[in-house]
Amino acid sequence: MSDYPSILLENAVNQVGSLPGVGKKTALRLVLHLLRQSDKDVEAFAGSLTRLKNEVKYCRVCHNISDQEVCPICASHHRDKQTICVVENVQDVMSIENTGQYNGVYHVLGGIISPMDGVGPKDVEIDSLIARIEPEQIKEVILALPTTMEGDTTNFYIYRRLSALQQPELRISQIARGVAVGNELEYTDEITLGRSIINRVEFKG
Amino acid sequence: MSDYPSILLENAVNQVGSLPGVGKKTALRLVLHLLRQSDKDVEAFAGSLTRLKNEVKYCRVCHNISDQEVCPICASHHRDKQTICVVENVQDVMSIENTGQYNGVYHVLGGIISPMDGVGPKDVEIDSLIARIEPEQIKEVILALPTTMEGDTTNFYIYRRLSALQQPELRISQIARGVAVGNELEYTDEITLGRSIINRVEFKG
Repeated sequence: MSDYPSILLENAVNQVGSLPGVGKKTALRLVLHLLRQSDKDVEAFAGSLTRLKNEVKYCRVCHNISDQEVCPICASHHRDKQTICVVENVQDVMSIENTGQYNGVYHVLGGIISPMDGVGPKDVEIDSLIARIEPEQIKEVILALPTTMEGDTTNFYIYRRLSALQQPELRISQIARGVAVGNELEYTDEITLGRSIINRVEFKG
Repeated sequence: MSDYPSILLENAVNQVGSLPGVGKKTALRLVLHLLRQSDKDVEAFAGSLTRLKNEVKYCRVCHNISDQEVCPICASHHRDKQTICVVENVQDVMSIENTGQYNGVYHVLGGIISPMDGVGPKDVEIDSLIARIEPEQIKEVILALPTTMEGDTTNFYIYRRLSALQQPELRISQIARGVAVGNELEYTDEITLGRSIINRVEFKG
């Protein structure tokens, strides 16, 4: 006899427990919660996932998730199409949008270069980024990738590819790194703190 | 424009975010994880939930979740049918089974009496428990409900109902309460510690 009183229950718990960061106990709790909902609610829950998987599109310009061929950001007349912010994934677009500080467009790589995980430059949307950089159309590419070794590798690879385009007018920038706003220096890790001293900027009182 | 680049994505995130203890950020992470899986895997995921909801049965003896009319525990010839352990829910059965210390059968109430939440004695499986107590067939009822006010209320209600059956041979017990095994007294709450002194038991060296 298995640990579970029902194979159906066990299957559902195994499926939910396969999600990242969801252990077996949590999965069981979530599945039993769903089981207490109405048939209609469970259909709606499961249906929202299969419908997303079956019907989702990716913007043919920036590769963000979209319901249309072109996402609302790329389609908007109010966005600055001359500035492209390069991010790893869909969540990053949403995080930057939530700051309300950016009015350009995006390019979603769908991953970053990670030789350890077998992810090379061809496995992420770098070629399509380069193809977007038409002469005198794009003024700036902002690299907003994770501040990890993989992020740095990807930044450097993209930088080299962009430089090879020989467009001296194209500005290539990366997001600022340093002590997070609201953080005590005491609790900031040494590498971040060290770099924030080396890369100090002029104080504008 | 909504926060999400896609209505399909937003629906899925809202559904997953409606699960207890799952916030919007976690929901988005889980949904995007699912989106990276194959069509077949997403079907299997969603299908396991709808199938559970549509096909699940509850044991007609103990009300535990089951694939059959009678659950494997109630159907087993190796279990002591004269001892019934009363628990709140399915998880509790699994927790007690995992201890390997119990060989009787169960009765799953499917909730506990909670006047604050509008849950009365008729809303949980107490009548069916009383109906199981046939004269001279059941030797002991073990109350294994949460050690909360609602658990105590339910314990007391069941105790009164069982007493009213006038079966002097029927033993009614409850699980031991006290300092958890492996815990320091220093970190045990005062109520538990106080009661564990009052309810001290003879030391068997």
